Amino acid sequence: MINVGIVGCGYWGPNLIRNFMSCPETELLWACDKDEKRLKKAMRQYSGVSLTVDVDDLVADESLDAVAIATPVETHFRIAKACLENGKHILIEKPFTLSLLQGNKLVQLAREKDLQIMCDQTFCYTSAVRKMQEIVQSGVLGKLLYFDSVRINLGLFQQDINVIWDLAPHDLSILDLLIDDKIVSVSAHGLSHAGNNIENIAYLALKYENNFIAHLHVNWLSPVKIRRIILGGSEKMVVWDDMNVTEKIKVYNKGIVVEQDDQEKVRQFLISYRSGDIYSPHIDNTEALALVVKEFAACIEENRPALTDGKAGLRILQVLESAQKSVKTDGSNVPIQDVMEI
Amino acid sequence: MINVGIVGCGYWGPNLIRNFMSCPETELLWACDKDEKRLKKAMRQYSGVSLTVDVDDLVADESLDAVAIATPVETHFRIAKACLENGKHILIEKPFTLSLLQGNKLVQLAREKDLQIMCDQTFCYTSAVRKMQEIVQSGVLGKLLYFDSVRINLGLFQQDINVIWDLAPHDLSILDLLIDDKIVSVSAHGLSHAGNNIENIAYLALKYENNFIAHLHVNWLSPVKIRRIILGGSEKMVVWDDMNVTEKIKVYNKGIVVEQDDQEKVRQFLISYRSGDIYSPHIDNTEALALVVKEFAACIEENRPALTDGKAGLRILQVLESAQKSVKTDGSNVPIQDVMEI
Amino acid sequence: MINVGIVGCGYWGPNLIRNFMSCPETELLWACDKDEKRLKKAMRQYSGVSLTVDVDDLVADESLDAVAIATPVETHFRIAKACLENGKHILIEKPFTLSLLQGNKLVQLAREKDLQIMCDQTFCYTSAVRKMQEIVQSGVLGKLLYFDSVRINLGLFQQDINVIWDLAPHDLSILDLLIDDKIVSVSAHGLSHAGNNIENIAYLALKYENNFIAHLHVNWLSPVKIRRIILGGSEKMVVWDDMNVTEKIKVYNKGIVVEQDDQEKVRQFLISYRSGDIYSPHIDNTEALALVVKEFAACIEENRPALTDGKAGLRILQVLESAQKSVKTDGSNVPIQDVMEI
Amino acid sequence: MINVGIVGCGYWGPNLIRNFMSCPETELLWACDKDEKRLKKAMRQYSGVSLTVDVDDLVADESLDAVAIATPVETHFRIAKACLENGKHILIEKPFTLSLLQGNKLVQLAREKDLQIMCDQTFCYTSAVRKMQEIVQSGVLGKLLYFDSVRINLGLFQQDINVIWDLAPHDLSILDLLIDDKIVSVSAHGLSHAGNNIENIAYLALKYENNFIAHLHVNWLSPVKIRRIILGGSEKMVVWDDMNVTEKIKVYNKGIVVEQDDQEKVRQFLISYRSGDIYSPHIDNTEALALVVKEFAACIEENRPALTDGKAGLRILQVLESAQKSVKTDGSNVPIQDVMEI
Repeated sequence: MINVGIVGCGYWGPNLIRNFMSCPETELLWACDKDEKRLKKAMRQYSGVSLTVDVDDLVADESLDAVAIATPVETHFRIAKACLENGKHILIEKPFTLSLLQGNKLVQLAREKDLQIMCDQTFCYTSAVRKMQEIVQSGVLGKLLYFDSVRINLGLFQQDINVIWDLAPHDLSILDLLIDDKIVSVSAHGLSHAGNNIENIAYLALKYENNFIAHLHVNWLSPVKIRRIILGGSEKMVVWDDMNVTEKIKVYNKGIVVEQDDQEKVRQFLISYRSGDIYSPHIDNTEALALVVKEFAACIEENRPALTDGKAGLRILQVLESAQKSVKTDGSNVPIQDVMEI
Repeated sequence: MINVGIVGCGYWGPNLIRNFMSCPETELLWACDKDEKRLKKAMRQYSGVSLTVDVDDLVADESLDAVAIATPVETHFRIAKACLENGKHILIEKPFTLSLLQGNKLVQLAREKDLQIMCDQTFCYTSAVRKMQEIVQSGVLGKLLYFDSVRINLGLFQQDINVIWDLAPHDLSILDLLIDDKIVSVSAHGLSHAGNNIENIAYLALKYENNFIAHLHVNWLSPVKIRRIILGGSEKMVVWDDMNVTEKIKVYNKGIVVEQDDQEKVRQFLISYRSGDIYSPHIDNTEALALVVKEFAACIEENRPALTDGKAGLRILQVLESAQKSVKTDGSNVPIQDVMEI
Repeated sequence: MINVGIVGCGYWGPNLIRNFMSCPETELLWACDKDEKRLKKAMRQYSGVSLTVDVDDLVADESLDAVAIATPVETHFRIAKACLENGKHILIEKPFTLSLLQGNKLVQLAREKDLQIMCDQTFCYTSAVRKMQEIVQSGVLGKLLYFDSVRINLGLFQQDINVIWDLAPHDLSILDLLIDDKIVSVSAHGLSHAGNNIENIAYLALKYENNFIAHLHVNWLSPVKIRRIILGGSEKMVVWDDMNVTEKIKVYNKGIVVEQDDQEKVRQFLISYRSGDIYSPHIDNTEALALVVKEFAACIEENRPALTDGKAGLRILQVLESAQKSVKTDGSNVPIQDVMEI
Repeated sequence: MINVGIVGCGYWGPNLIRNFMSCPETELLWACDKDEKRLKKAMRQYSGVSLTVDVDDLVADESLDAVAIATPVETHFRIAKACLENGKHILIEKPFTLSLLQGNKLVQLAREKDLQIMCDQTFCYTSAVRKMQEIVQSGVLGKLLYFDSVRINLGLFQQDINVIWDLAPHDLSILDLLIDDKIVSVSAHGLSHAGNNIENIAYLALKYENNFIAHLHVNWLSPVKIRRIILGGSEKMVVWDDMNVTEKIKVYNKGIVVEQDDQEKVRQFLISYRSGDIYSPHIDNTEALALVVKEFAACIEENRPALTDGKAGLRILQVLESAQKSVKTDGSNVPIQDVMEI
């Protein structure tokens, strides 16, 4: 049994609380929010949990194994650092921290203290993404060719981070899970229409080492809500349409066949087209966050990195920082260093 | 009555022929294709048209006013030049020519000879685009913010041009028609998966002078066919979904309201959201090409530039050349010169 | 302030409880369920409400103004009767009672006691139906011609009532609200596939006095979920697609124009077709049940029949009974008496 | 090689002509239409075919093996009779004849003369229906439970036949092909809104011997175009959505499992639900009419009944006549005699 505390009872916190309460491997000891009214409202229906407006109460409680941090991103580093220094494992919301530097410090601290950092990259635990992972790993797609994501809506204009930091982490965490290739460089174009220099529409192109490209369109100012990922392979292709209630994932037996030939002139006859069946696997209804909480408990008990550990968080931060640099320099190609060597 | 000849009876030619035959302002005198069998097949159902495999027969016919050129792009310049030098107006398929330089020479030649060049940018004459133009010109969209186009399919892999030259001209001609702002630079990312260095997937970002961005996703290797354009405005937004048979155009009364305020801290309360009705105007069924042919006859008779004249063709060529340069230099930002000053 | 009690805390009860708690015009005094565990679970997050497993506690409480009944249908009559006899207004779930006879007795009892019976025909309070009602009342549809509803799904096979009694009340209540014409007869066809003589698929045809027809397809055994109503008018037509998240209601400016003419032979030239714009009004997100609760409080305070009062419930029962008779006699046409005269 | 003539060059005739011209097993000798202008226009692009306005020219030509009849339905009987009497096989458009009596006479005449009658039930030759047939015959659907068809549109109001005779033959021919069970009775409800007593909306319920029901909704006055058939089976279900360009056929691995049990009380626990994968087989693009023409040639050459022979036509006529009787008697159940015994 893992004794857990939570900091931050705003938008996402209550979902974590509900899942910690129902998870048999976790016991929620503390809930904390600096806004007492919000704290009480969030905890009204639960009993047996200590409430506080002071995060230090959690840090100081020696019986506490782990802390989930669901506060605004600018507070992540400070709270996480205090928790780690006091021997607590952490589960942290996206984006991990405000900078790669902060993230790195936390990862090193955790390593020194032999503690787990898990990033709550919730999408990686959805049934749809797990099904996509299963499909990719089965090899049926052939060689992976490209990843195209459109994640647009008339969404909430954030005031502290732009649309890249707000929405791209979802796709970047999925890419990190699915694609076994290294990102070489990032180029991002964006625009701010609210007069505050915070981009509300952006396009990211990620070049990989092995002739693979990932492209993201993130947008808070679209009249239509689209959440669609296309993953093109040489043998089959997968489309995830998250707005489709009943057929989220479709596998298309479609593609081209390219035959190598020396004679340039006849090459045009050597590309042929396949158009076959479409298959939409059943997707179960398990709540992703229940699996997040379960994995958090498991990685602590088994003393192993979580599926979405701190290093995964760093890899995403690195792309975000590079994209940020690119969007502010008119889409220049920003190379990605190997973060693991830092 | 305009006497017309056509060169090229392959994929697109027969459509032009049919429309020249039924247009009351044009009379088709000549049809030409170097492949006699294809020529005869295309003309089987028509009588009273002279057939030839030699384009010089058209060039030499003094009674001929105009020539429509529907041959492969690498022959455009040579044929068009011969026609213009011999006093014939020309209608020319997309892409206009293989290079801006060629296009410029043709436009100058036409100016010297007082002849019309019309580019067959067919999409500009579709009911949907004309409706979009009407909506833009009415001003109801407010300030235009962005243009996002997705034009993807499991499409024919061309052997002579990449997916940018094949598909982007459609969007570029629509942009040229709708957007009254100047393109500053182009950045393009693409990849070739057929091993022939011809990109089959590409993303283009076009930056404009006045805080407007246009983005194009063109792709021959998509499992799903999508042809969708979003045009975001400050007051309303338009979506054109060409795959939707009955509701191609939708106007969304959606957006944000940003109020200016000096106090940074309260700014977050000053963005509010509007979500109103959706309106899908009836789109008539007029064939776009019938309007192309009509406009071609009209611009000749009225001795005025066509809606999609040679200069429009040059503006598109310039973006294509810049995009080509960018895609071959890893997405570098390629500035656009003012082509009209060349 | 209306003092309310609720009986039945199973599937629908908790929704009523939540709305009674948040409605400023109602105060929830009692919650009752014969299953104490279910009762406690449902009320866990609320305080200040008396709990009981015995409905007589509510009946006996003189301070109680009204009772909401959300128990299985076979208990409706007994509980409602006790409540009315003890001076309590009632809000009752669909279907109203097991028979028209029972319903009639309750309505008469309420009349004698000067109490309100309100039937919780929730769909009538949805934003979509209220918008349809607004459209119908505005007269823009012209003469109403037909109503076609498809309400199918892989739904829960009920054990006590067939698919007609389970799903048709939704459509019948909408018809009762929208259509100002009288039903003359009902014909129903159905089939049971579970071997229990309880129909799981049924088709109902309702003939009206004035050349209007309503048709319902209700089905628990469909692989796809469809909830779509078409309301055809002579001038315009409305389609309500409840599965469409963003465009639930569409108004089509479509139809035919029939001109009267004496000459039979030329009649074929006198039907012309209109195909115009489509308009999808914005539908607000108000929870229907909040309006149900508000209307319940209002009809008691203002001592007037609710929008969906007991008589509306009787009219629906009458169609259900007739449909039941018809489905058991191979679709024979069962005439509808004027229930109000009973 | 079968020598063929065609009568009727209006709406459907040109499609037949084109397919007879391209079919290697048929040679078109004659084309006939009483309207000479229409005849010439239809045949403009073809040479080597004799044209006539007099059907007797075809009847009298001894070298002619077969005649395709694509004239208005009221002329079918007279023309077909003359052809059969003169030794010609016939291919005839839907509906077969104006009455079962007429159809019967033609079938008997053909039998006496040892000639083939083929009904052009085109839908039976579409790739989608052939795929459905393949699925049904494979047995994967389990026991067939119901067939639900919606075939509605803002369609052409016919002047000689109602919407049942116009649209229901499509579904009835598909039912005749797919369902190996006998129709017991038909009930139809309909309404005429054009003031001419010709129904423009109708609902047909067909009861079968073995607990199977087929239901058809046909409608010329719908604002939306829907062509969807659901075929429910005990193991799987098929949906054919003809408006879906890329996924016309979907097979749903969905259903219920009913376990028999003696104890009434626990029955509710014995129905369980399955919700599995969805599979959309690739549908080829073969034109259905090419297969019709091929089958016509084949049944003549092989001297065997066509897949959709005269008897199939009679079975459909019988349902149409019964439906007509029912719709004019307020939906009364009209029993179906075994037409084959007539």
